[in-house]
Amino acid sequence: MAKGLVGLWTNGDCTEMDIAEPEKGRLTGSYTIAVGTPREASVPLSGLVNHTKADSPSFSLCVSMGEIGGDSCNAVVGQYFNHNGEEALKTIWLMRSGVDGHKDNWGATRVGENTFKRKTA
Amino acid sequence: MAKGLVGLWTNGDCTEMDIAEPEKGRLTGSYTIAVGTPREASVPLSGLVNHTKADSPSFSLCVSMGEIGGDSCNAVVGQYFNHNGEEALKTIWLMRSGVDGHKDNWGATRVGENTFKRKTA
Amino acid sequence: MAKGLVGLWTNGDCTEMDIAEPEKGRLTGSYTIAVGTPREASVPLSGLVNHTKADSPSFSLCVSMGEIGGDSCNAVVGQYFNHNGEEALKTIWLMRSGVDGHKDNWGATRVGENTFKRKTA
Amino acid sequence: MAKGLVGLWTNGDCTEMDIAEPEKGRLTGSYTIAVGTPREASVPLSGLVNHTKADSPSFSLCVSMGEIGGDSCNAVVGQYFNHNGEEALKTIWLMRSGVDGHKDNWGATRVGENTFKRKTA
Repeated sequence: MAKGLVGLWTNGDCTEMDIAEPEKGRLTGSYTIAVGTPREASVPLSGLVNHTKADSPSFSLCVSMGEIGGDSCNAVVGQYFNHNGEEALKTIWLMRSGVDGHKDNWGATRVGENTFKRKTA
Repeated sequence: MAKGLVGLWTNGDCTEMDIAEPEKGRLTGSYTIAVGTPREASVPLSGLVNHTKADSPSFSLCVSMGEIGGDSCNAVVGQYFNHNGEEALKTIWLMRSGVDGHKDNWGATRVGENTFKRKTA
Repeated sequence: MAKGLVGLWTNGDCTEMDIAEPEKGRLTGSYTIAVGTPREASVPLSGLVNHTKADSPSFSLCVSMGEIGGDSCNAVVGQYFNHNGEEALKTIWLMRSGVDGHKDNWGATRVGENTFKRKTA
Repeated sequence: MAKGLVGLWTNGDCTEMDIAEPEKGRLTGSYTIAVGTPREASVPLSGLVNHTKADSPSFSLCVSMGEIGGDSCNAVVGQYFNHNGEEALKTIWLMRSGVDGHKDNWGATRVGENTFKRKTA
């Protein structure tokens, strides 16, 4: 179940996710990005899988850039699809920057998308 | 550190979060909603805190509705603010529904916001 | 129809909208913001109203900050509600910054929300 | 200026935009989608172009599904890129459904993305 999520995924550009075998619906792994951070960074990812659609699990996961001195927290929601053998993770993400006060809250959140494919060695 | 996040928070409507003392930047607790789910539901939340702004931590957290038979996964990003003693969590969320196939992916993600205040007994 | 949208609205902070009587479903007016722009700015807004829910029209509208030298374009979607005489426009917005190339596209879009109330003189 | 936007664009799936020559920064044209609507639909689009980055204009545009009996309003923000002759419109969209009352507002807004390429006959 949710086996499809396990492995190394790339958006073909500058973001990779390495997802470990989930335990009790809990996702762990690492998230590597090369943009919007002080330097290329690999940080732990922490998330949850939803098994309701067994062959096509949905998930949400969190990343904190505090680990590498960044002030942002990211969250990703998405779903695994296998369409005629072509696997993909279709995701939408939010990136929250820490701001100095509530007056700056309005512009603190970015939104975007990533389609991940399996990375072959 | 990040002490400000700990406790019971409400959006004044139908969503509550009970956030426990973070351990090594890891957030746990429970998330209760009364809309968009099979029934009023309390599910575990799992997230990360970013300590870069010590008095005003940012965070991201995940929730899976699979626990109660729902097909969605939610993710929340936000920041704690204390403005002259008035505490608030300003958040933006994504709610991802599991869909049957990649053709339905386009409409699977909702976006919204919540401002949480401390809930007093 | 869609009469409810007409008039001066404020988010209580730094954003105002002055919406004129719609003609054939077309919204015009002005949008004033004091954050994220070179200076406090009033720019034309241009949008559309959907009359399907006659007493509670939904709408989308566009704003370009190019008018005042900014590099962003904003879009707002929302709906008018009158709940026991308390009128509000509940909105979600996107703010797109012009970036130098497709490599910078990932972080160009911000998301947020505004609840507008009628502004009384 | 902003010439790059003019023409017929497709997301390779079920959405097309036909954008006319902008006049005074005003975008017009038609928007065709085959999902999330009562039927395949072509509706007018109305938007604005930002000329700040002359070769890579950003834009926002609105669409109302009321024209074809739908209850939603859409808004799109994006930017034109020409990377070594490969043209693309990178966009993020919001789709707002009209809901019956403010209690249902929380789930009324969907978010997603589209990359458009020029459609060749």
